[in-house]
Amino acid sequence: MPTYQKMTRQERGKEYAILQEKYREILTHERHFDMTRGKPCQEQLDMVSDIFDMLQEPDDYIVDGIDIRNYGALSGLPEAKRLFANILDCRPEQMFVGGNASLQLMYNVLDIGYVHGLLHSPRPWCKEEKIKWLCPAPGYDRHFRLTESFGFELISVPMTETGPYMDVVEEDVKDPAVKGIWCTPKYSNPDGIIYSEETIRRMASLKPAAPDFTVMWDNAYCVHEFEGDYVPFPDILRICAEVGNPDLVYEFASTSKITFPGDGVACLATSEANLDYFEKWLGVQVISYDKVNQQRHVLYLQNRAHTLKLMKRHAAFMAPKFHAVLDILQREVEPYGIATWQPPHGGYFISVFGIPGTAKRALELCNAAGVKMTPAGATYPYGKDPADSNIRIAPSFPPLEEVEQAIEIFSVCLRMAALEKLGI
Amino acid sequence: MPTYQKMTRQERGKEYAILQEKYREILTHERHFDMTRGKPCQEQLDMVSDIFDMLQEPDDYIVDGIDIRNYGALSGLPEAKRLFANILDCRPEQMFVGGNASLQLMYNVLDIGYVHGLLHSPRPWCKEEKIKWLCPAPGYDRHFRLTESFGFELISVPMTETGPYMDVVEEDVKDPAVKGIWCTPKYSNPDGIIYSEETIRRMASLKPAAPDFTVMWDNAYCVHEFEGDYVPFPDILRICAEVGNPDLVYEFASTSKITFPGDGVACLATSEANLDYFEKWLGVQVISYDKVNQQRHVLYLQNRAHTLKLMKRHAAFMAPKFHAVLDILQREVEPYGIATWQPPHGGYFISVFGIPGTAKRALELCNAAGVKMTPAGATYPYGKDPADSNIRIAPSFPPLEEVEQAIEIFSVCLRMAALEKLGI
Repeated sequence: MPTYQKMTRQERGKEYAILQEKYREILTHERHFDMTRGKPCQEQLDMVSDIFDMLQEPDDYIVDGIDIRNYGALSGLPEAKRLFANILDCRPEQMFVGGNASLQLMYNVLDIGYVHGLLHSPRPWCKEEKIKWLCPAPGYDRHFRLTESFGFELISVPMTETGPYMDVVEEDVKDPAVKGIWCTPKYSNPDGIIYSEETIRRMASLKPAAPDFTVMWDNAYCVHEFEGDYVPFPDILRICAEVGNPDLVYEFASTSKITFPGDGVACLATSEANLDYFEKWLGVQVISYDKVNQQRHVLYLQNRAHTLKLMKRHAAFMAPKFHAVLDILQREVEPYGIATWQPPHGGYFISVFGIPGTAKRALELCNAAGVKMTPAGATYPYGKDPADSNIRIAPSFPPLEEVEQAIEIFSVCLRMAALEKLGI
Repeated sequence: MPTYQKMTRQERGKEYAILQEKYREILTHERHFDMTRGKPCQEQLDMVSDIFDMLQEPDDYIVDGIDIRNYGALSGLPEAKRLFANILDCRPEQMFVGGNASLQLMYNVLDIGYVHGLLHSPRPWCKEEKIKWLCPAPGYDRHFRLTESFGFELISVPMTETGPYMDVVEEDVKDPAVKGIWCTPKYSNPDGIIYSEETIRRMASLKPAAPDFTVMWDNAYCVHEFEGDYVPFPDILRICAEVGNPDLVYEFASTSKITFPGDGVACLATSEANLDYFEKWLGVQVISYDKVNQQRHVLYLQNRAHTLKLMKRHAAFMAPKFHAVLDILQREVEPYGIATWQPPHGGYFISVFGIPGTAKRALELCNAAGVKMTPAGATYPYGKDPADSNIRIAPSFPPLEEVEQAIEIFSVCLRMAALEKLGI
C-alpha cells in the first residue's frame, strides 16, 4: 500500500469512500469516551486509597512536636520536605510543601512577581511596559494560560528531541522583556521528551538580560516511568548554584499522579534566598496547608525508592493502554505516512503530529463520534497550533477497551482528514 | 479600694511596690504560655478526629457520579455547597467550596481585583493611582495585612457595640478610591460583637462612589457560640439583592474552628454573577480542591442543626476558659478602673481596652514572664493602635490551668503598666 501522498487523487477518493463507510458505521453507536486530560483511572485511585488508613491513633497527629491538624508549619512538615527532596534529588532546605495543586504554587510565584516583583526584579511585573514569556511548544496548555492570564506575550520556542531548542532560547533571553520560560523537563507534556544533560546545563547557565528571569521547571513526571526502570535526572538547582545562577529556577512537583490528582500534595523547590522571599509573601495569604494529608504521604510514600515501587504498580495500568495506542497507530496510521510520533517511556501523553492542517478536522470527526480528545491547538500558546498538526492523546483514564476503540476511531478520523487535505 | 485614677501618687507608689514584688515572684518560674492566636486546643481536635473515619469503602469515593479523588468540580461538591449554604442561610448556587484556607479565598478575590479588576471595575486595581480600604478597628490583623500587601491605604473605622460606625463608613465610601471594607460580622475579631440588623442593612445598602466597591464579609464565627444558643444571623446576600446591590458582598466561612484549622474546608458565597467571574479567573490557577476532605465534612457535619450540636461540644472546652479569663479580670482588674471589656458569647477572643498608653507595656511585662499574647497594636491597621490601649486575649489553646495562671499574670502586668502611666 503506497502512502497517501504517493496515491493518485483517484486512489485517495476510493480510500476515502471506504473510510467514510466505516465512519458512518462508527456514528451508529453512541459513545462518550473522555481522553481530554492526563488523569489516572479509577483502578489506580482505588489502588492507593489505603493511604487514608495511615493515621489511626490520636498520637499519629502529633509529628515532630507539631499538631498536624492545627495551624502552623506554613512551609510544610519537616518529614514531607525530606520526602520530596529525596524524590527530586535536592536538599530539604530548598523545599516548600504546600496543598494539593502544584499549578497553584506556579501561580503563586508568577503572581508574587506580578504584584511585588521576584527577588531580583527591579520593579513589580505589573509596572513593566511589556513582559514576554518563552513557551516551548507543543507544551502544557495550563502553563501557557497562566502566563497569558497576566497579559504576558507568549513566545513559542520549538521543541527538539532533547528539549527546547536552546539556540533559540539563548537568543530570546537577550531581550530584557523576556522574564521566564516554561519547562516540563522529564516526559514533557505532550511529547514525552526527557531533556538532555546538555539542555539542562545550558538552561541552568542562561545569561538573560532580565535580572529576574525565571525558569519554571515543572517536574510533574519525575518518577513517572511506565516502561523500564527509573531514569535518573540531574538536579538543576545544584547546577544553577554551580554556574552562579542560584536563583534562576523554581521547580515544581506533586503526587497528583502518584496518589490522587485532587487530594495529593504539591511542592516547590528553589534556592533558599528565593524560598525566604516566597514565604514572606505567601504567608500573607495562607496560614498553613493540609499537614494531615502531608503526613499521610510521608508515611505512605516513605522515600523515592519506595515510591518507585508504587509507580511500577501504576505502570501496570498505564503501560497496556499506551501499548494499545502505539500498536493501533502503527497498524492503522503509520502505513499511510500521514503522521509521526515518538513512543514515550513515561508521563501521561502520546504526541501525534499529523500532516499540517489536519489536526482540527481529525478531532472534529472524533468529537462527533463521541471520542473527546484534548482540543487541537491546545498544546500551543494562545491555543493556536500554527501548523494545525499536533494532537495530544491521553490514554490513562478510560478502560483499556475504550482506549482501543477510541484510537481505532481516531485513526479513521485522522486518515479521513489527511485525505481531505491531500485532495480527493 | 479606690480606682487607680482616684489614688494619690503615694498610694499608687505603694500599690506598685506590692505588684513589683508579685511580679518578681512570677519571674522566678519558667513559663511558656501561648495565647497569641485563636486556635482550638488539642482536646477539641481529638474530639473531631473521627471525621477521618467517614470514608471507608471504594464506593465512598464516588459521589454524585464524581470520583472525589480525581480532578474536577472546581467550585466544590454539590453536597458541600448545600451544607455551607445551609450553615450560612444562603443558596447553594451562590456557594464556592475550596481548600483549607478561607484567608486564601479572600486573597484570591483581592488578587483578581488587583490583576484583572472585579466584575464592575473600570480597570484592574494595579492600574489605579491609589486604592483605599476601610478597616473597622480593632479588627483582624491578617485581614489588614492582606490589603496592605497590595499597597492599599488602610483607613481605620471605629467599632461600636453594633458593628462598624456606619455614619463614618457611609461618608468614607463617597471617595471613589475607597474600594472595599473588611467585616467580621458575627463575634467580631477581637471584640466579639454581633453586627446589628440595622448595621447589616446599612452595609448592604451602601452607595459607594466606586462601582466595584466590595464588602469582604468574613463570617468566620457563624456558628461559634460558646455561651447560650445559636444566634440567627441575617443573610446579607439576600438583603444586597433586595436593595439592588447584588454584587456588593463576598462572604467567607470555614470549618477551621469546627473541625481543624489546618485541615478544614473553606467556602465563599456571593452573587452568581460574581461567582461566574471569580471561577473564570480562579480556574486558571487551580484545577480542583481536595474533594475527599469536602466529602468527609459533608458526612460529618450534615447540616447546620447537626453542626450546632458539635459546636456545643466545642463550647464545653471553650466556655470554662472564657469564664476563667472574665472571672479573673473582674476580680483582679475591674476594681482598679484601668480597663474595660465586653463578655462575648461566641468567637475566639476577649478584647480588653486598657487606659491609653498601657497596652504595649503590659504585654512587654507579660512576655518577659513567659506569657505570649497577640502583640499590642496588631488589631489595628499597620499594627499601630493609636491609643496603645487594645489587647486581644485568645484563651482557647492552652489548658485551663495555664489560662488561669496567664491571666493572673496579665492582670498584674496590666496594673503595673497602668500605675506607671498614671504616675507613681
